[in-house]
Amino acid sequence: MSAVVAPDLTEGVDENLMAPVRVAVLGAGTVGGSVVRLLHERSDLYAARVGRRLEVVGVAVRDTAKERDGIDPALLTTDAEALVDSADVVVEVMGGLDPARGLIERAMRRGAQVVTANKQLIAQEGVALHALADECGVGLDYEAAVMAAIPVMAVVREALAGDVITSISGVVNGSTNFILDMVARKGVPFEEAVRKAGELGYLEADPTEDLEGLDAAAKIVILARTAWGLPVTLDDVRRQGITGLTDEDFHNATGTGRVVKLVASAWRSGPAASPKVEVAVRPVALPQDDPLAMARGGANVVVIEAESAGTLRLHGAGAGGDETASAVLADVLRAVRRVGP
Amino acid sequence: MSAVVAPDLTEGVDENLMAPVRVAVLGAGTVGGSVVRLLHERSDLYAARVGRRLEVVGVAVRDTAKERDGIDPALLTTDAEALVDSADVVVEVMGGLDPARGLIERAMRRGAQVVTANKQLIAQEGVALHALADECGVGLDYEAAVMAAIPVMAVVREALAGDVITSISGVVNGSTNFILDMVARKGVPFEEAVRKAGELGYLEADPTEDLEGLDAAAKIVILARTAWGLPVTLDDVRRQGITGLTDEDFHNATGTGRVVKLVASAWRSGPAASPKVEVAVRPVALPQDDPLAMARGGANVVVIEAESAGTLRLHGAGAGGDETASAVLADVLRAVRRVGP
Repeated sequence: MSAVVAPDLTEGVDENLMAPVRVAVLGAGTVGGSVVRLLHERSDLYAARVGRRLEVVGVAVRDTAKERDGIDPALLTTDAEALVDSADVVVEVMGGLDPARGLIERAMRRGAQVVTANKQLIAQEGVALHALADECGVGLDYEAAVMAAIPVMAVVREALAGDVITSISGVVNGSTNFILDMVARKGVPFEEAVRKAGELGYLEADPTEDLEGLDAAAKIVILARTAWGLPVTLDDVRRQGITGLTDEDFHNATGTGRVVKLVASAWRSGPAASPKVEVAVRPVALPQDDPLAMARGGANVVVIEAESAGTLRLHGAGAGGDETASAVLADVLRAVRRVGP
Repeated sequence: MSAVVAPDLTEGVDENLMAPVRVAVLGAGTVGGSVVRLLHERSDLYAARVGRRLEVVGVAVRDTAKERDGIDPALLTTDAEALVDSADVVVEVMGGLDPARGLIERAMRRGAQVVTANKQLIAQEGVALHALADECGVGLDYEAAVMAAIPVMAVVREALAGDVITSISGVVNGSTNFILDMVARKGVPFEEAVRKAGELGYLEADPTEDLEGLDAAAKIVILARTAWGLPVTLDDVRRQGITGLTDEDFHNATGTGRVVKLVASAWRSGPAASPKVEVAVRPVALPQDDPLAMARGGANVVVIEAESAGTLRLHGAGAGGDETASAVLADVLRAVRRVGP
């Protein structure tokens, strides 16, 4: 046995013969910063992988004067529209509905491939955006919008493309899981755990999105829509967050050997001839050995049941700048392959 | 909230306008039987998903007189070459190196897309077969060759396409895991557990492939090659099976709170400028809470570490007719999309 040595990675790559692919990044927050830095650091690697160079042509921000780690200030611009118009691939990591939606639509209409990590936008406008992408003949990818680097979109959309998914359930919000884990495993009172999570930066300034299950609802809506091809919306979600929980709920769960988790789930109901999909987000007291009970701290877990594949389980980091960027960048390389010469 | 109702799945599908895609299946064992049955049962569903009909044009077997559940006898043929010559997509699920290799090469040379579940063939001849596929401009897919329905190939090849994988390790052989689990959790003596696994059909007639780690070696070689793009071969694997284990080994492991698992692993070593890959299959005594220690019975687990994504864990059924067929069929639908009109 001997270790296998790498050949010259650039062998056979004629990336210099093709014009570079022009990549625009909208947003320079935690995720955008990671995306821009990694596109720079892995420039040669990506060129070898896709056979042509990627060029970051600009990064749209609100304030160009603010210093941003690892981003060349010359790339910063406040003119997002002009930036979009100059790109082959547009990466939207600014978040929020506006102006993200308008910029994505503009990009599509100009024939650019779109990659986004924006879960609320896709949950609310995904059906319309897909219709526009089809009309414009461009790709719209958003693996990063659901559970960051955990490749659940790829599994639901592609790995199970020949199968019939019957249910999806998961612990898909790291912030609430961090809180629930602190209560269950360290005995911290619930109210205090919520406060601590806020202090440690685990919660948004407005923590409602996490605590009331809105973040989890957006993720499970996107997954359900992808799994069953139905126009599931946020209004379809039976949603209950964790703010109504009391120390007594946790006490009761512990007393019966259970663990409280915020579970997002979607399942097919009704006869095969006229299938329906139901979607819910709610706190559930799970047995200790349930796969979803094993999600620790900020980790995410998702369990997918399919008729032939049986039960698949995916586990990993559902948040974080680099973790989310990993998924964004896989989508970017896929988008690059669609760009013409 | 109301349940979401399915629209007419065939809406907008003009599959009747295009000629059906001709699918040849080579082999009608456990996996082949599932593939043919599911192609039949899901015929309308697949037509809706890919926009055209799939037609199974034949199933190559050695003995057409043998009855096979769920396969129309009129489809059976012993003339695999003629069958290959008539197909747009060739699904090789016969196993073994010959005649599988020759038939796959023949299919490629005639411009057919190839899907296979043949792990030994890909481990031994994958580099040459990929070169031929590129030369012929056809696809060669084999998600099912590694851990059946667990979509580890898709994750390594696509979901982490923008990342840098640093290691892959897994419990990838269900038969040996069934044995080790019986010893660890039920206290069955090792020799007896091996005998029982044989009686229950968990081992091949020649159990060497499982027990000596050859099956695991083939899987980790394919994963390593895919993750790092290096020509890793079976000869590169430091391999130790479970046949040398004694009851004392298990006793010692239990005494220190550990669990013995047959672990297949691959990792990048050496400096970034000249990376190497090392590959091993060997029994390891793992802490009880190690993710790999949690694989129960015939289950498989794989843990992938990447620079940006962090740690991803996939868990599921690594064998079985329908489970393997699930992966084969995802590859078939992908192949169908590549077939011209």
